[in-house]
Amino acid sequence: MGSSQNEEPAMPPPPVIQKASDDTIKIMLATDTHIGYLERDPIRGQDSINTFREILQLAVKHDVDFILLAGDLFHENRPSRDCLYQVMALLREYTLGDRPIQIELLSDPNDGKAAGYSFPAVNYEDPNFNVGIPVFSIHGNHDDPQGAGPEGALSALDMLSVSGLINYMGRIDLPLNDAEAQNSGIAIRPVLLRKGNTRLGLYGVGNVKDQRMHFELRSNRVRMFMPRDKDDWFNILLLHQNRVPHGPQQSVPEGMFDDSIDLVVWGHEHDCRILPEPVAGKKYFITQPGSSVATSLADGESIEKHVALLNIQGKEFELTPIPLRTVRPFVLDEVVLTEVAEEEGFDLGDRMAITKFLKKRVNELIEKANALWDERNQRAVDEGEEALPRMLPIVRLKVDTTGVSEMSNPVRFGQEFQGRLANPRDVLVFHRARATAKRGAKITVEQPELSIDDPDLSTSEKLSKVRVQTLVREYLAAQELQLLGEAGMSDAIETFVDKDDIHAIQNHVSVALRSLLKGIQANGKNVENDDDLDALVDEVKEKQDKEYIEKRKQGKSSKSKGKGKAAEDDSDASIDSMMMDVDAGVSDFEEPESDVPKKKSRAPAKKVAPAKKAPAKGRGKKKVESDDDEDEEEDEVEEPQPKKRTNRAAVLSQTTAKKAPAKKTTAKQATLSFAPSGRTSTRAAASRATRKNAQMLDSD
Amino acid sequence: MGSSQNEEPAMPPPPVIQKASDDTIKIMLATDTHIGYLERDPIRGQDSINTFREILQLAVKHDVDFILLAGDLFHENRPSRDCLYQVMALLREYTLGDRPIQIELLSDPNDGKAAGYSFPAVNYEDPNFNVGIPVFSIHGNHDDPQGAGPEGALSALDMLSVSGLINYMGRIDLPLNDAEAQNSGIAIRPVLLRKGNTRLGLYGVGNVKDQRMHFELRSNRVRMFMPRDKDDWFNILLLHQNRVPHGPQQSVPEGMFDDSIDLVVWGHEHDCRILPEPVAGKKYFITQPGSSVATSLADGESIEKHVALLNIQGKEFELTPIPLRTVRPFVLDEVVLTEVAEEEGFDLGDRMAITKFLKKRVNELIEKANALWDERNQRAVDEGEEALPRMLPIVRLKVDTTGVSEMSNPVRFGQEFQGRLANPRDVLVFHRARATAKRGAKITVEQPELSIDDPDLSTSEKLSKVRVQTLVREYLAAQELQLLGEAGMSDAIETFVDKDDIHAIQNHVSVALRSLLKGIQANGKNVENDDDLDALVDEVKEKQDKEYIEKRKQGKSSKSKGKGKAAEDDSDASIDSMMMDVDAGVSDFEEPESDVPKKKSRAPAKKVAPAKKAPAKGRGKKKVESDDDEDEEEDEVEEPQPKKRTNRAAVLSQTTAKKAPAKKTTAKQATLSFAPSGRTSTRAAASRATRKNAQMLDSD
Repeated sequence: MGSSQNEEPAMPPPPVIQKASDDTIKIMLATDTHIGYLERDPIRGQDSINTFREILQLAVKHDVDFILLAGDLFHENRPSRDCLYQVMALLREYTLGDRPIQIELLSDPNDGKAAGYSFPAVNYEDPNFNVGIPVFSIHGNHDDPQGAGPEGALSALDMLSVSGLINYMGRIDLPLNDAEAQNSGIAIRPVLLRKGNTRLGLYGVGNVKDQRMHFELRSNRVRMFMPRDKDDWFNILLLHQNRVPHGPQQSVPEGMFDDSIDLVVWGHEHDCRILPEPVAGKKYFITQPGSSVATSLADGESIEKHVALLNIQGKEFELTPIPLRTVRPFVLDEVVLTEVAEEEGFDLGDRMAITKFLKKRVNELIEKANALWDERNQRAVDEGEEALPRMLPIVRLKVDTTGVSEMSNPVRFGQEFQGRLANPRDVLVFHRARATAKRGAKITVEQPELSIDDPDLSTSEKLSKVRVQTLVREYLAAQELQLLGEAGMSDAIETFVDKDDIHAIQNHVSVALRSLLKGIQANGKNVENDDDLDALVDEVKEKQDKEYIEKRKQGKSSKSKGKGKAAEDDSDASIDSMMMDVDAGVSDFEEPESDVPKKKSRAPAKKVAPAKKAPAKGRGKKKVESDDDEDEEEDEVEEPQPKKRTNRAAVLSQTTAKKAPAKKTTAKQATLSFAPSGRTSTRAAASRATRKNAQMLDSD
Repeated sequence: MGSSQNEEPAMPPPPVIQKASDDTIKIMLATDTHIGYLERDPIRGQDSINTFREILQLAVKHDVDFILLAGDLFHENRPSRDCLYQVMALLREYTLGDRPIQIELLSDPNDGKAAGYSFPAVNYEDPNFNVGIPVFSIHGNHDDPQGAGPEGALSALDMLSVSGLINYMGRIDLPLNDAEAQNSGIAIRPVLLRKGNTRLGLYGVGNVKDQRMHFELRSNRVRMFMPRDKDDWFNILLLHQNRVPHGPQQSVPEGMFDDSIDLVVWGHEHDCRILPEPVAGKKYFITQPGSSVATSLADGESIEKHVALLNIQGKEFELTPIPLRTVRPFVLDEVVLTEVAEEEGFDLGDRMAITKFLKKRVNELIEKANALWDERNQRAVDEGEEALPRMLPIVRLKVDTTGVSEMSNPVRFGQEFQGRLANPRDVLVFHRARATAKRGAKITVEQPELSIDDPDLSTSEKLSKVRVQTLVREYLAAQELQLLGEAGMSDAIETFVDKDDIHAIQNHVSVALRSLLKGIQANGKNVENDDDLDALVDEVKEKQDKEYIEKRKQGKSSKSKGKGKAAEDDSDASIDSMMMDVDAGVSDFEEPESDVPKKKSRAPAKKVAPAKKAPAKGRGKKKVESDDDEDEEEDEVEEPQPKKRTNRAAVLSQTTAKKAPAKKTTAKQATLSFAPSGRTSTRAAASRATRKNAQMLDSD
């Protein structure tokens, strides 16, 4: 699992685009906009939608060919009417229009279209819509398909897709039954685009539970349908899974993707790591744009939020991060009261003194956050943009209250900062070393900020959900539905609560009841009285519960016999590609033919280092450029040395050469680009540059 | 209140169109499609959507200029994702396309547009959409605007409107506060259309609670903004209210509308009374299309369902009902067991005999329903349409079980008819004379089929809602929220349950709490201990409860001092029209000027005939055009005479004029048309024609 991008990268840097041309595909890259997050909050309620608007405006401003999103456009699986309305209105406002589309669709426009209707899946192929900037998106874990209506499971993105506003890709077809699950795996069909001589394959795979993805990867069941000349394409893989390990099978290793992939766009993780990072033993880079709104008050969310302008020309790419200006500054800090009491000379029993100290600290944090805003604002103004009015900052102070018997109410504490903070109610969180925590002490114990299952819920959201869940459980108990086995019911309730799927419980009851009756029918010959029946019911129920749990262990709805073996050798697993013909100009391509082996059945326990996929490297590789030729034009801002990203001002100057202000040296923003050849020599430098820039971003 | 259309009409029949021409506006008229009704039913789940598809196909087939709907497009206030998806897909499939639009919009295309966005409110005015058949709709009581998000209250129709698929009209702006409510009333701004010499005003008023509508009407606060030459227009009023009286203030009288109205399209009532009916003392007619799906098993729903082709030319109109072919045949009957026992010679204690008899009757009803299908199908085939496969019928047998001590289970009874009936579970309903009903007897007592508040819920739906409501109440009790007064809370719960508005309760609690605290603050000077506080809380709470109930009595959120008086003279009330200039060519028209009196404050108890508003007519009238000059130049697209905008598609048609219009005679379909003059002489005949046709429809 070649993770850990802070190590010296083993792999070469990506190529560099010399200058934009008619062959350059320009993409606005963003993800995890989480529209609807905290939508009822009087201060922050419109944050997510405002930043989404900013992203669309940036797309217009930079005249991109399309917008690419990697999931969690929506925060709620069933977005509120307001959210859906606003998103539709914004997409209509900014992405429809007369701007000519220059990216030609080479794959079948009907791939993934709504069954029974004549309109295509890709909106700009529909003559009834005047699309200016297409939007392509996969679904995330928040907006994944749910339900089982006449149209199958639907995602909130389907609403946007059916109304012609986005192009929803990477839908995972859920297996219909166990038999199908056993043979299905995950198939990724690309969207294939061309602009001039640049050909781009978009391979989207919407979120599935990490456990399942892990299983499918291990079992070699993730298949990409690729053109036969796949290495002549620039191939982007979009996914939305855990990247940071969260325990066994709860994340996707970075080094598992096909060698023909050039760039992985990783959604789901909220930290902005948008600068492409190399992966040990692999040719591809990973860009992790991060969320455009902070949905938890954790460290990672305090990194400055960015989207990026991604330029692709032939097999070369260039990525320019663009800081988002409508995101509230967010600073967080931590104090240990025992320590500061000593330093500051107050007593741990002196509540007044503690409160006074904490207020001072919060005030300092507010000032820091405001300074951050001003600094960022000034930077934008320096680049010729309009100044924006300050937004109230988000501040979080974690307080280790170990040794303190009584603290004041953190909500009341926050009231004083009303009007100066965006989050007065939860500016403070208290925690204490577990060993010393006393039961019953009047202390607000910190809720774990991040849970594995749902890193984006705030504590209050979690509490509210818990309450609903309790309510539902009680209701079900009252209805005596325990009869049906609690394991499945519990999952159904979870779906009901998490995904607002009001039919989840009903569906479960209906299936479970039928199954129960079947079991009883099969075993009911000896039943003579009520007691017999009760015993039989219990027996059948218990058996079914066990089966359910067993099934669930093997990944949601996929029940594979080979699972035990597969678990042993992660290193061998990967996403496979299946060949297909795509003659540019021919719009359909075929399923892999029989001469493509159906992926050798897995040879267990072959412990090979992650780099083992390297042999593929030489194959079909093109040495397109040796890019020392960057100093041709006066407006050239790029420096010749290895670098990965280009400051957007620089890009503008390259393409248009008419933006005078673009001449500023990209003082604040790091500009990175890498030479494709001379691997060993530039590797270390590139790595250092990457790290340096990443740090610069992180510490913003 | 001139209701009762079966009496000899006191008023003249409508005019007749001699023959269709380029001036003829063709409209597909339908309403109450209730998409999503019973959507989880395995047999009937797709009925509503299938019939909606049929309506759209009819619109295409008859090449109409637009589709007009009078509310309750959706059954649920928050339609399921599936429903919304299907409706969007169908609208995209059938209403977008290259068909040229020939109806020119004379009113402001931005009237009612989404604030903060640039796209117009009328979809075919948006150059980014290629609209073939515009759809205009008001909201009903099922899909009325709810919620209080950043965009204000939104209706499910807003989702379709913002995505450019329908044109939502007749939105009622809810008063923001009591002060505003006192002065607001209901304002109706028309959509003004023209095709050749025919000018059409569409006055839509979406559903409000009947109580409020009644109040606004009585208070002369329903104002229509009309062109000064309003009588030269053909004016349609669309509304969605109770027409059948349901108790005091629970319906809208038929004779209350402005004299300049030519045709009222009445939504909400499900019985098909689509043939225009005259109204005593008024010039206008009423057409009540009825629902396109039966949402209750009541008599009215068994009338054959129709939509209509409405042709308008100048001041003349012609309405051709079109039977819907995808609607299940529905027959119902009633038996009184005491009577049939005597006739058939069986004993009331003989359960077997009763069951046998009931089965025989249900079988007869199934045969009758099937015969009905065959007959309707044959009629269509005779007219050159395709035969459709039989649909399972809906059958309802009401059984008066008076005198019978025990009946078999009606659900089990229905099982035998599985596969032959669409509603096996509720084919039988039992009821008995109240006096003889015994408590505790094992008899399923019939639930009242129709309640005043919600005539469209099935019994099982009601039960399920009741259960949820109970659940919520218990939950609230547990949370000790009774503190806040139950009257308002009860309404909030109702909204929560009926409209799926998950924030209704939260909003109420927040308002009530603030109000409670204010009350306590104002009176809290003498509070010395907890008991004092409790007493004070109770006192304030009680006062607020009383106030709330008082307020509610006066109509939802409108608190008018004049209310008591107003209630006394219904006959004086009417919808008033306000003059405005519509110079075709000027795109906005103004609010009534100051010389238009702000509607004299109501003179109570003046029993004048409804026609009293006539004097307003002559004032400020402008004869702008006599526009016969359309045939000037071949390339000339814009006509010189007053008009506001030309749709780009219309431009095409006018210049190319290659569509040979369908000349089909509407042979079998009852076609009604009336001569405009010779009033007294044709009145009786017209009335007879109306009745005859109505009967023909009813007895189908």
